[in-house]
Amino acid sequence: MSLIVQKYGGTSVGTIERIQAVARRILATCRAGHQVVVVVSAMGKSTDMLVDMAKQVIDHPSPREMDMLLTTGEQVSTALVTMALHAQGWDAVSMTGWQAGISTEEVHTKARITEIDPAPIQQALGQGKVVIVAGFQGISESGQITTLGRGGSDTTAVALAAVLKADRCEIYTDVDGVYTADPRIVSSARKLARISYDEMLELATLGAGVLHPRAVECAKQHQVCLTVRSSFSEEEGTIIEEEADMEQGLVISGVAYDKNVAKITVVDMPAKVDTLSNLFAVLAAEHVNVDIIVQSSYEAETTNVSFSVSGDEVKKTLDVLHKQRDTLQFGYVVAEKELAKVSIVGAGMITNPGVAARMFTCLAEAGVEVKMVSTSEIKVSCVVPLEDMEKAVCNLHTVFGLDTKEKAVVY
Amino acid sequence: MSLIVQKYGGTSVGTIERIQAVARRILATCRAGHQVVVVVSAMGKSTDMLVDMAKQVIDHPSPREMDMLLTTGEQVSTALVTMALHAQGWDAVSMTGWQAGISTEEVHTKARITEIDPAPIQQALGQGKVVIVAGFQGISESGQITTLGRGGSDTTAVALAAVLKADRCEIYTDVDGVYTADPRIVSSARKLARISYDEMLELATLGAGVLHPRAVECAKQHQVCLTVRSSFSEEEGTIIEEEADMEQGLVISGVAYDKNVAKITVVDMPAKVDTLSNLFAVLAAEHVNVDIIVQSSYEAETTNVSFSVSGDEVKKTLDVLHKQRDTLQFGYVVAEKELAKVSIVGAGMITNPGVAARMFTCLAEAGVEVKMVSTSEIKVSCVVPLEDMEKAVCNLHTVFGLDTKEKAVVY
Repeated sequence: MSLIVQKYGGTSVGTIERIQAVARRILATCRAGHQVVVVVSAMGKSTDMLVDMAKQVIDHPSPREMDMLLTTGEQVSTALVTMALHAQGWDAVSMTGWQAGISTEEVHTKARITEIDPAPIQQALGQGKVVIVAGFQGISESGQITTLGRGGSDTTAVALAAVLKADRCEIYTDVDGVYTADPRIVSSARKLARISYDEMLELATLGAGVLHPRAVECAKQHQVCLTVRSSFSEEEGTIIEEEADMEQGLVISGVAYDKNVAKITVVDMPAKVDTLSNLFAVLAAEHVNVDIIVQSSYEAETTNVSFSVSGDEVKKTLDVLHKQRDTLQFGYVVAEKELAKVSIVGAGMITNPGVAARMFTCLAEAGVEVKMVSTSEIKVSCVVPLEDMEKAVCNLHTVFGLDTKEKAVVY
Repeated sequence: MSLIVQKYGGTSVGTIERIQAVARRILATCRAGHQVVVVVSAMGKSTDMLVDMAKQVIDHPSPREMDMLLTTGEQVSTALVTMALHAQGWDAVSMTGWQAGISTEEVHTKARITEIDPAPIQQALGQGKVVIVAGFQGISESGQITTLGRGGSDTTAVALAAVLKADRCEIYTDVDGVYTADPRIVSSARKLARISYDEMLELATLGAGVLHPRAVECAKQHQVCLTVRSSFSEEEGTIIEEEADMEQGLVISGVAYDKNVAKITVVDMPAKVDTLSNLFAVLAAEHVNVDIIVQSSYEAETTNVSFSVSGDEVKKTLDVLHKQRDTLQFGYVVAEKELAKVSIVGAGMITNPGVAARMFTCLAEAGVEVKMVSTSEIKVSCVVPLEDMEKAVCNLHTVFGLDTKEKAVVY
């Protein structure tokens, strides 16, 4: 008997009929002799509805109260999925984040899981029950209800799979796997049968949107075997696992994008040893997520630092910077919005020099201006104008040979 | 500085505009220099919506999962009311039942509060915050989310007022006080300025609907000064307090009704000493709320027992009885539905013999059949056919002099 953790996203539990379908799928896994722990998101648009209500009441709702408000969405789903299993005659029990023993940092709207006590879930499993856990939420040490932020339910699922030593973690979503590029943009995009944690991590971070990067990171760290598949079909999904045994074939395995990027440039900072650390310490303290960082350092008394943030965090970032202006001693700040990040990802890159150059050539030939560049061992990202994003993605997909359907995806 | 507990019902927080109005009312109390703890119900029809969803999934949802589902409604209200106070620049914090230290029995959908730890609320009050508590809910010893059943938010408010030693507890609802009869049925019904706990208790139990009997009971027990008033007007409501200092004037102070009554008769039970205790122990164990009990005992080997239950509990009652048929050894069971209970309530009754007789005469003259009778020191209740209920209420209101507007209500 193996233990399987399944996660169903908001679309998968969007209506009563879909909740019933999810129950049937869970039941099929139970009947195959497995123990099952299920993590669910809030129903379809219910989170948006709650956010709307909050915005009607106040422009900037308190993060603590937002968590209080939003966590009800997952709680509703867990109860309904549990009832749907009962309706099929199977024993099941729902748990909120705190009931499932999920502890988090003392931070609201984007807390990280600090610890999970497996006892409550293990006890229920021992009684032959399916356990339905509210994703996206936990409890802080002081007893506050917290949320894990975007993609939090994926993280809940993987973290539970790790702590419970589950045999695998299945992420059910509205797409049937991980593609070489977004099929809505690139018609020739193909589904990958397998992908490594690292590549998935880059794809996830870069906005492929299928799986939250924190979830992949957690899966990699704890070697949780992850599957992404559709809750609306029986098709095989994409398996995400260690690349150790895989051959390296294609140079790159996917093209990803993130269309909500802004570039912030802090001009005329004192060129001291601690300038960078001061700047990013201040931003980190206020939980601003910085992505790409570019510093053009030269022999001078002042320096400029550019970094990218999510388009939603521009206002907050500027507020934080201006509040700390005396400490940071910069001249002024420039914010560029309406940008996108386009990235190519692939384990094959490590052994293939010149991949970045090929990417820049491709973008130059397409007339796409590159505003920032960031590279890692398995990816190259370029920040480009939002209006050029689609063109960039399609051209890269073609140039790197991902259109070729005949070519099997081997690593 | 006094401490005031306010409770706002579902209609009072039914829309964003109403939530904002509630926030303004809370704020006025704060600005008058009081500490305020607020208990809120779920928004308008949100509980009904959740119940509907559950019914779509399964005919008889598990009580535990219903509690899991329904408690989200109050949690949403607390967060929104808190945000509305923030929007007005006032510090406030929301709490679920378990965060507010409200412990209950290990029973679902109708748990009773066993204990309240005042520390979390007191701490927040000490920080100058208004505390917004989710009504209707608590946590059991084993960590399950429980609900207090119908009128649970009233009970939460009164219990908090008792534990926190509040100066008064204000119940805001969609009616502006306690009337001598339901104004929708009796056009000459008048609002009472004051009423005693005992009379209110009888009226509440009998279905006056303004205030839940458990809340009144709790208020009486802990001598909590209770006010019922409308959240939509500035009108004075009705004060409910000890009758010690009141003169007794009117014979009765109100006519109440409950239009959802069923009569169950268990026929041919063995006429033994423990027959009654066995029967009602079995019903109590399954949490069937029995109201009036009538046993026609005579010298024979068998006996019949009749009792009334809520119309909603007929099926459950019959199920319980039939399951225990071997133990209880009865012949058969008769269930009569479509009944109502009509009651007259008044502290004056104690010193006025013949009140019951006058009631029976009044009903007989109106041609209303009396199916069961129950009396206490301050009330007489008759179970009558539902179709005659309105006629019965109106005639009693007139016969007992409640139509007379000139007559001041003194006790």
